Amino acid sequence: MNTVPKQIPLLLEVCLSPKLYETYHRKDAIVVIIDIFRATSAICTAFQYGVEKMIPVAGIEEASAFKAQGFLVGAERNGVALEGFDFGNSPYSYMSDSIKGKTIVISTTNGTQAIKAAKQASQIVIGSFLNFTALCSWLRKQNCEIILLCSGWKNRFSMEDMLFAGAVSDALSQNSDAFKLGDAALAAKYMYQSAQKNAYRLLHESSHKERLSALGLKEDIKYCLSLDKTDIIPVFRNEALINAGLS
Amino acid sequence: MNTVPKQIPLLLEVCLSPKLYETYHRKDAIVVIIDIFRATSAICTAFQYGVEKMIPVAGIEEASAFKAQGFLVGAERNGVALEGFDFGNSPYSYMSDSIKGKTIVISTTNGTQAIKAAKQASQIVIGSFLNFTALCSWLRKQNCEIILLCSGWKNRFSMEDMLFAGAVSDALSQNSDAFKLGDAALAAKYMYQSAQKNAYRLLHESSHKERLSALGLKEDIKYCLSLDKTDIIPVFRNEALINAGLS
Repeated sequence: MNTVPKQIPLLLEVCLSPKLYETYHRKDAIVVIIDIFRATSAICTAFQYGVEKMIPVAGIEEASAFKAQGFLVGAERNGVALEGFDFGNSPYSYMSDSIKGKTIVISTTNGTQAIKAAKQASQIVIGSFLNFTALCSWLRKQNCEIILLCSGWKNRFSMEDMLFAGAVSDALSQNSDAFKLGDAALAAKYMYQSAQKNAYRLLHESSHKERLSALGLKEDIKYCLSLDKTDIIPVFRNEALINAGLS
Repeated sequence: MNTVPKQIPLLLEVCLSPKLYETYHRKDAIVVIIDIFRATSAICTAFQYGVEKMIPVAGIEEASAFKAQGFLVGAERNGVALEGFDFGNSPYSYMSDSIKGKTIVISTTNGTQAIKAAKQASQIVIGSFLNFTALCSWLRKQNCEIILLCSGWKNRFSMEDMLFAGAVSDALSQNSDAFKLGDAALAAKYMYQSAQKNAYRLLHESSHKERLSALGLKEDIKYCLSLDKTDIIPVFRNEALINAGLS
């Protein structure tokens, strides 16, 4: 009788706020940064349109310093693009051939703060519905523990980020024992499954959607929830995001 | 034509970790402390059995000082009752006529830490499945904003606490516009609704249940998930928990 040695499942966990990251940190885990509305969706879009490198910075002062040096800079606070910079964090603002091969510096309310919180992680990658299938497939291949880090809104819980974390948890645990889901990953998976038929309905009442709708960003919301526009996995290396396929 | 002035809905929000409390704090909101496995279930049980007052303390040293003064003291860390004290945080340990009219000091891994985190709240009350219906009815009458504070496990997310928060969010929003649910309350409600038919199934895979099962506490788990054993709402007044009906 052949016995195939059974692999011990790897932990797949969801951290629902950057403020909780230190309690979830595990030294070998890959951290997936999630900020569906809109930083990580915008980052994936920028790579889809050929940007070569993105430098996330947490503070506006730092962003301004880069701008003064001649860099292209995207800066947003509270959902609004800041004056004097080249982009906000609408995915649409990055849909241009002019960014091809360029380096763009970005600072956003939540997404870049989450990257900062997870700086001690062994590896940081960017996730959104726009690179969902490619991301799941890439994660499966890494054979590492995974922490899905929801950026939220100013350290508070965000529905859309948990929904995405649930979609990834669901995909990686389907027909596979490779991962063991932590409590928050299980909760996210159950929430995603119950919402699966109509994510719009679930998000309809959410505060962040209301906030963006009030800013006239309904098209952005719709775009950020669309699936698989790109195969690129942006990874964080040497203080910058680059295409994992080129690293 | 009669027009009844429409009341503005009150915010009902869920805070998924004591560590996030300061970002959720609102000065007039009632905070409901939730630690289903097992501190808030044990507290409700103690009041059901006639305890007059419970003094929650965060540190073991403080608990020991009370013990030295002759108080009855319950102290638990990592799921285990600490030696030299009178109770752990199993609800069963409080099911005794001997506690009637007494004051008990308690210190637990998560529950009393959550009370400490919310100390700035205008009002703090204790929630568990054991006082579920009475709690919901009491909350409806207060006409205040509500924050359901999940104690979690060492600042991490706990499935059973979110499930209870979802049950309360669901109950308070049924056939009523009195409350507007925040994002985490909505997520908790959806998770609860999807799990409603079998909470045991949902909790079956959860880490805290595994942790308690490993300690031989299956009966405790079952008891902590049972509904409406008491009508008492323990409220925090002058550094101690007392029966709201007597305050």
